[in-house]
Amino acid sequence: MAEKFVTSRRVEFCETDAAGIIHFSSFFCYMEQAEHAFLRSLGTSVMDQSPGSDRLTWPRVRAECEFLEAVRFEDVLEIALQISRIGNKSVTYEFNFWSQSAKLVARGTLVAVCCRRLLPDAGQLQSDSIPESLREKMAVFFAEATN
Amino acid sequence: MAEKFVTSRRVEFCETDAAGIIHFSSFFCYMEQAEHAFLRSLGTSVMDQSPGSDRLTWPRVRAECEFLEAVRFEDVLEIALQISRIGNKSVTYEFNFWSQSAKLVARGTLVAVCCRRLLPDAGQLQSDSIPESLREKMAVFFAEATN
Amino acid sequence: MAEKFVTSRRVEFCETDAAGIIHFSSFFCYMEQAEHAFLRSLGTSVMDQSPGSDRLTWPRVRAECEFLEAVRFEDVLEIALQISRIGNKSVTYEFNFWSQSAKLVARGTLVAVCCRRLLPDAGQLQSDSIPESLREKMAVFFAEATN
Amino acid sequence: MAEKFVTSRRVEFCETDAAGIIHFSSFFCYMEQAEHAFLRSLGTSVMDQSPGSDRLTWPRVRAECEFLEAVRFEDVLEIALQISRIGNKSVTYEFNFWSQSAKLVARGTLVAVCCRRLLPDAGQLQSDSIPESLREKMAVFFAEATN
Repeated sequence: MAEKFVTSRRVEFCETDAAGIIHFSSFFCYMEQAEHAFLRSLGTSVMDQSPGSDRLTWPRVRAECEFLEAVRFEDVLEIALQISRIGNKSVTYEFNFWSQSAKLVARGTLVAVCCRRLLPDAGQLQSDSIPESLREKMAVFFAEATN
Repeated sequence: MAEKFVTSRRVEFCETDAAGIIHFSSFFCYMEQAEHAFLRSLGTSVMDQSPGSDRLTWPRVRAECEFLEAVRFEDVLEIALQISRIGNKSVTYEFNFWSQSAKLVARGTLVAVCCRRLLPDAGQLQSDSIPESLREKMAVFFAEATN
Repeated sequence: MAEKFVTSRRVEFCETDAAGIIHFSSFFCYMEQAEHAFLRSLGTSVMDQSPGSDRLTWPRVRAECEFLEAVRFEDVLEIALQISRIGNKSVTYEFNFWSQSAKLVARGTLVAVCCRRLLPDAGQLQSDSIPESLREKMAVFFAEATN
Repeated sequence: MAEKFVTSRRVEFCETDAAGIIHFSSFFCYMEQAEHAFLRSLGTSVMDQSPGSDRLTWPRVRAECEFLEAVRFEDVLEIALQISRIGNKSVTYEFNFWSQSAKLVARGTLVAVCCRRLLPDAGQLQSDSIPESLREKMAVFFAEATN
């Protein structure tokens, strides 16, 4: 059975809006932050900047989120990450956001593509196969898509 | 044939990230800003705050975006809005983002629900039918969904 | 001798910019987040929303920051808060940002004014004296200004 | 007499917070955006990315803002930029923010340092003298500091 990677996050004031709730764009930043924490937990980074590194980076090609319940300032969310697809060059992450009262408040999807940053201009990217060692670590978090 | 509502937007520095391109969450803010400009063009606001107003507001229930091309600091995007669905209480907006060289760089969807803010605590919302006069104005921008 | 309130913060990707470093505006959000964590540690909140609460809030009247060293994605900062002035209605916070190699990377100031949110329109604010019980708790963190 | 560089800016929803007003950090982004528009008006960019360019960039070393009046969603601000100091390597900008009813709602300061981005790793910066041609263009906007 698939493992989940779980982080938690308190809603900051600058992430709310004049409607009194979290701004919807903040959920996309939360997803990305969970993805980055996940990559750190696997021993890598979304943007490895060390000399001699693989210089891999993971631009997103698609992001989606459904907002089910209002979330407010200082609420603490639990964010659970799983992987619904590992392609040759891309990963599809699924996120569930839970409130402290165990209500599902949002769920989202992020598709990231494995790219190599090309020297000397590291701003140029080229998509590439996910390294095998990383793919194996990711596979533990692979869950059958449920929708 | 359906009309398009078009705005344009220069990418600001605070909207970029360390990968040297626009941060993907910024596209969701751009979509929302185009939606708000659209509502202003119809003579209303996403959050009418005038006394005696309808106190309508439009929380989003779903947002999605596909990122097709890298967009950089100071690029100017043209953002075209159309409506693919007008339900009883919700509107589905479709956005196409074009670069200055007329390349489609991103496309997205936003589903917003018509809500009434309840006094005395205007933070409480209740979904409601879209007012008929507004629905008629919106209908001009209704396009058959193409995907 | 004055106590310090210390929090720590990892730089997130959405807080960086195309220069490859943290966007300078993020330091202001970090200061505010440290202030809010500090208020929580004193048993209150920057925006108490509970019924029957004092409905205090703390709009800022001045903010300042000096940027001494470049800070990058995934750097972890230690943020130390002290108070350099407690007026009748306002508090002046001082912040020092330290890198993991114990370098001072930034320092900032935030002046917040104690305000009461007026019902029924909680968006209307009126400045008010800081409650005595809160002032006493804050005094522990009072440090003589050093510049 | 010194000229002013003036831009205008509508407050976007994602720039507000749960207190119902513009988040204070947004003023710093507005200052920067006015600075960048100013540099474009002088024929340059805050981050010249064209091949063969000077590769100048302008990291900030200090930023400050006073918040005088609440500013709300969809308010349109007029932002006036002047220069209070041109050093050998740094520029001090002064900003005044005016509401549509001609009220001064905020004023701020930004100190930016002229730096050259070093190849091959353009993330490395070295401070440098402001090019003479640029200094002359800037001088037109030089105003005696008034406080």
